[in-house]
Amino acid sequence: VVMLPGPPREMQAMFSQEVRPLLAELGGGVLVSHNLRLFGIGESLVEKDLPPRLLDAANPTVALYAHDTEVRLRVSGRAPTRDDAEALIVPIVNQLAEQYREYVYGVDVPSLEAALVETLKAQSLTIATAESCTGGLLAARITAIPGSSEVFGYGIVSYANSAKLELLGVRQSTLAQFGAVSEETATEMAEGAKNLSGADIGVALTGIAGPDGGTPEKPVGLVWLAIASRHGARTKELRLSRGYQEERNLIRELAATNALAEALQEAKALT
Amino acid sequence: VVMLPGPPREMQAMFSQEVRPLLAELGGGVLVSHNLRLFGIGESLVEKDLPPRLLDAANPTVALYAHDTEVRLRVSGRAPTRDDAEALIVPIVNQLAEQYREYVYGVDVPSLEAALVETLKAQSLTIATAESCTGGLLAARITAIPGSSEVFGYGIVSYANSAKLELLGVRQSTLAQFGAVSEETATEMAEGAKNLSGADIGVALTGIAGPDGGTPEKPVGLVWLAIASRHGARTKELRLSRGYQEERNLIRELAATNALAEALQEAKALT
Repeated sequence: VVMLPGPPREMQAMFSQEVRPLLAELGGGVLVSHNLRLFGIGESLVEKDLPPRLLDAANPTVALYAHDTEVRLRVSGRAPTRDDAEALIVPIVNQLAEQYREYVYGVDVPSLEAALVETLKAQSLTIATAESCTGGLLAARITAIPGSSEVFGYGIVSYANSAKLELLGVRQSTLAQFGAVSEETATEMAEGAKNLSGADIGVALTGIAGPDGGTPEKPVGLVWLAIASRHGARTKELRLSRGYQEERNLIRELAATNALAEALQEAKALT
Repeated sequence: VVMLPGPPREMQAMFSQEVRPLLAELGGGVLVSHNLRLFGIGESLVEKDLPPRLLDAANPTVALYAHDTEVRLRVSGRAPTRDDAEALIVPIVNQLAEQYREYVYGVDVPSLEAALVETLKAQSLTIATAESCTGGLLAARITAIPGSSEVFGYGIVSYANSAKLELLGVRQSTLAQFGAVSEETATEMAEGAKNLSGADIGVALTGIAGPDGGTPEKPVGLVWLAIASRHGARTKELRLSRGYQEERNLIRELAATNALAEALQEAKALT
């Protein structure tokens, strides 16, 4: 029995420095895993389409994990050597990547933001953000990734309408006619972020995170997402309320997650 | 035995709607708690100075919790009625608030950011942010608080030097002479955020979150924090590395937490 402390920061270092070598010494072969990361599909839909023989197998194993809008499929195999284990699991990884290709944003990447930064780097692209309801969360998630300074230089948190007008160049007439939470404002925010920074991709979010500020036409959870690039601008309407009592931060997180996913798609399309 | 689901979002609603009324029906008196929130003092120093009779008592009880740089002291009392319970614990709360007055930023406030937003609101003050190493995290923590739009309108994430120059008005000569991570640049960023937005308080962070970018003179974990208001500008040098392997996000969180604490002090001083 190996006992480890609870705080992940302490546990992880002890595990890699002490426990892993100990386990290797004890033998028993090698356990290798690959993780497919999916966005935009629910856990139950993934599970429904998984071949039952994969879920029931003892080696290799397929495990399904869900967290908010993200799903992870972990494929693990045990064998005497790493190469043998890889030979067991790679065909299954490839099969699942093909089956869920619309939703898989990466294999063995830790997060959407890491996949985005990696993709931007590989293509020498840059991104800039303009945020209203998420208030800096999107920028914070991008800059959480080491080396993100290569791809991210400018982020604007335009909570006030005056910030949208003065910094991002949103037109007064757009705000007056359509409101701050609208497809039109989101589009001008994304274009503004792109133009202000000279980045290849501008991504914008404006919405109603609640708990106040909702109306029948624009309820809490309505978020407009816009992406601008040399391909022009496109938008997406999100309805993120799940009816929980304290869901402001859930709405903000989900809005940022959707923006990361759309920005990643845009980066891939800009090759 | 009451069994509840693990996810806090589900558990909390069930607890308040179902379990609390059930417990009240069962009798046994009322348990009332107040929480003192401390910043800037370590758990062990708080514990050393706590009167032992408080820690050993069965009713009321004093419990000490620590999370990164924050410490919470929970004082709880059980009595037949709420008023009786309050009478038991209020003297202890007041005694502890006096004993740790340098460090207590609030009683029964959920967080530093909530205390900041509440204080700014109460004084009709506004705040703007300029962030380099924290990349939007400070703005995201402020805007996580419902109603923060009353006190926060503008946030600039100036990861690129050009963003510091163009958006915040940092002088080229300052960057050239002192570098992006310097007291001088932090000061001009804070002043820039204040001037750009017309806010009462500008708060800026620039530092080296790592893992790369450190030098012997400016190691990973060095962060300059600056606050500008009508009282002028002041700065604080932070050394936030604790020597962990993956501490980029810890450094960013601690930098943002320090900025919230200093901004709260500034808001209190602007009465």
